[in-house]
Amino acid sequence: MAAQYDYELEFTVRDYECDLQGHVNNSVYQNYLEHTRHEFIKTIGLDFKEMFDRGMINVVARVELAYKTPLASGDRFVVKLHLEQEGVKFLFYQDIFRLPDNKLCLKGKVTSTSIVNGRLTVSDEIAKAVERLKAAREKQ
Amino acid sequence: MAAQYDYELEFTVRDYECDLQGHVNNSVYQNYLEHTRHEFIKTIGLDFKEMFDRGMINVVARVELAYKTPLASGDRFVVKLHLEQEGVKFLFYQDIFRLPDNKLCLKGKVTSTSIVNGRLTVSDEIAKAVERLKAAREKQ
Amino acid sequence: MAAQYDYELEFTVRDYECDLQGHVNNSVYQNYLEHTRHEFIKTIGLDFKEMFDRGMINVVARVELAYKTPLASGDRFVVKLHLEQEGVKFLFYQDIFRLPDNKLCLKGKVTSTSIVNGRLTVSDEIAKAVERLKAAREKQ
Amino acid sequence: MAAQYDYELEFTVRDYECDLQGHVNNSVYQNYLEHTRHEFIKTIGLDFKEMFDRGMINVVARVELAYKTPLASGDRFVVKLHLEQEGVKFLFYQDIFRLPDNKLCLKGKVTSTSIVNGRLTVSDEIAKAVERLKAAREKQ
Repeated sequence: MAAQYDYELEFTVRDYECDLQGHVNNSVYQNYLEHTRHEFIKTIGLDFKEMFDRGMINVVARVELAYKTPLASGDRFVVKLHLEQEGVKFLFYQDIFRLPDNKLCLKGKVTSTSIVNGRLTVSDEIAKAVERLKAAREKQ
Repeated sequence: MAAQYDYELEFTVRDYECDLQGHVNNSVYQNYLEHTRHEFIKTIGLDFKEMFDRGMINVVARVELAYKTPLASGDRFVVKLHLEQEGVKFLFYQDIFRLPDNKLCLKGKVTSTSIVNGRLTVSDEIAKAVERLKAAREKQ
Repeated sequence: MAAQYDYELEFTVRDYECDLQGHVNNSVYQNYLEHTRHEFIKTIGLDFKEMFDRGMINVVARVELAYKTPLASGDRFVVKLHLEQEGVKFLFYQDIFRLPDNKLCLKGKVTSTSIVNGRLTVSDEIAKAVERLKAAREKQ
Repeated sequence: MAAQYDYELEFTVRDYECDLQGHVNNSVYQNYLEHTRHEFIKTIGLDFKEMFDRGMINVVARVELAYKTPLASGDRFVVKLHLEQEGVKFLFYQDIFRLPDNKLCLKGKVTSTSIVNGRLTVSDEIAKAVERLKAAREKQ
């Protein structure tokens, strides 16, 4: 789906994230994806908490997750992310691979939007961050 | 999407479920949906934990969530559920409505399958439970 | 410890709260206790979120938990609470009993304080709520 | 309290761990402490999940936490751990310091025990791991 990833972040499964089946609970994958998005946007100059404090509310509109292989106690994994913009929507393609065997664990697509003064908006700040991302891609 | 719901369960938002934006964190809605599914299947004679203990592993294969209105501290809400079967797949249509205004908060579709001895299977036990559900629907 | 409880709230264990040992994870008991405290203070006219929005920050200073019997999938239980005030500190004695056998699961003591303008304070609002609680106790 | 720590593990606060007050929720600190304990015991040859699978159930009997300074979005921190044995009890002294300023955030003491065949026991396996820890301390 993503020819090229823009960012990746490594994690280790924590035992409290596993449920009574011994696997990471389904909801926890959304935690992994969210943390990866928030760390990623810092690399292009944006901070989720700091934007919220200034009245820019970034919200998730849609989540689509395909669970492929469960993660379990002790597993290391990497979340890889590719960002696409469609008008006022930001599509985060996020895939999780177990390490070190690179087995695909989850394919995700998270659609988010940004609300300023109650209206869907791509603020100048976000537009500039996306420009920085595109410039960084071309350098690769 | 669902002409008729098979089950519904009421909840109250707990403050620890809200994140720094003051709304229920996106991942927590999956907790609400899971708990509703597990309570629902008890009404048709199935128990998630007890099936797991006997080697029947029910897994989520796919989750699609459309976030419509955020839930916040103090909100009451109801999760409504409708089940469809497609071969070895079970599709849980799950919608969340805030109470008492019945504002739609989330539309969800969760696809699950059942694994016995490493193979996707609809066990007799599950087949019979689905028959009970259909019989109950016709009585309504 | 508490001759008389001021409040009690019933819960059902949700499967996602159980960890790979099949029991409710230790940290989750704090969620139960917090939710019970926040529901309790509503009954004496206080709202955690609404106080925070007005700059009154209620914080937990100390938690002491003795785990007696683990809760597991499907268990119902009740959290019982008794409040004591010691100067600027509020001591919540909170015990968890499994239902219907009333087996003691956890004995907890949570010490909280209230911060207004950066200083530990018992605001008029909280002082009045405590008076209402004492009046209610005498009526019993 | 602990003259010398046996282990330390660094973390970054994840935004979903923060609650509506904008700070890490009180219960989440227990997650940090648990993950640190489980990573620590791996360094002395023990694995929480793997012991459970073989019928050795390690349980927390008591938790005492003093919250000193709240962690917030973006904070890095380190959990430091010192282990003491008292008969069949293991006392984990666990302190959390914010980075890079080393501000004390939490002082914790977690008492755990080990159950084999329904009885409190220090198994040979755990006894040997503790010996390895003591030998490692003397080398320092």
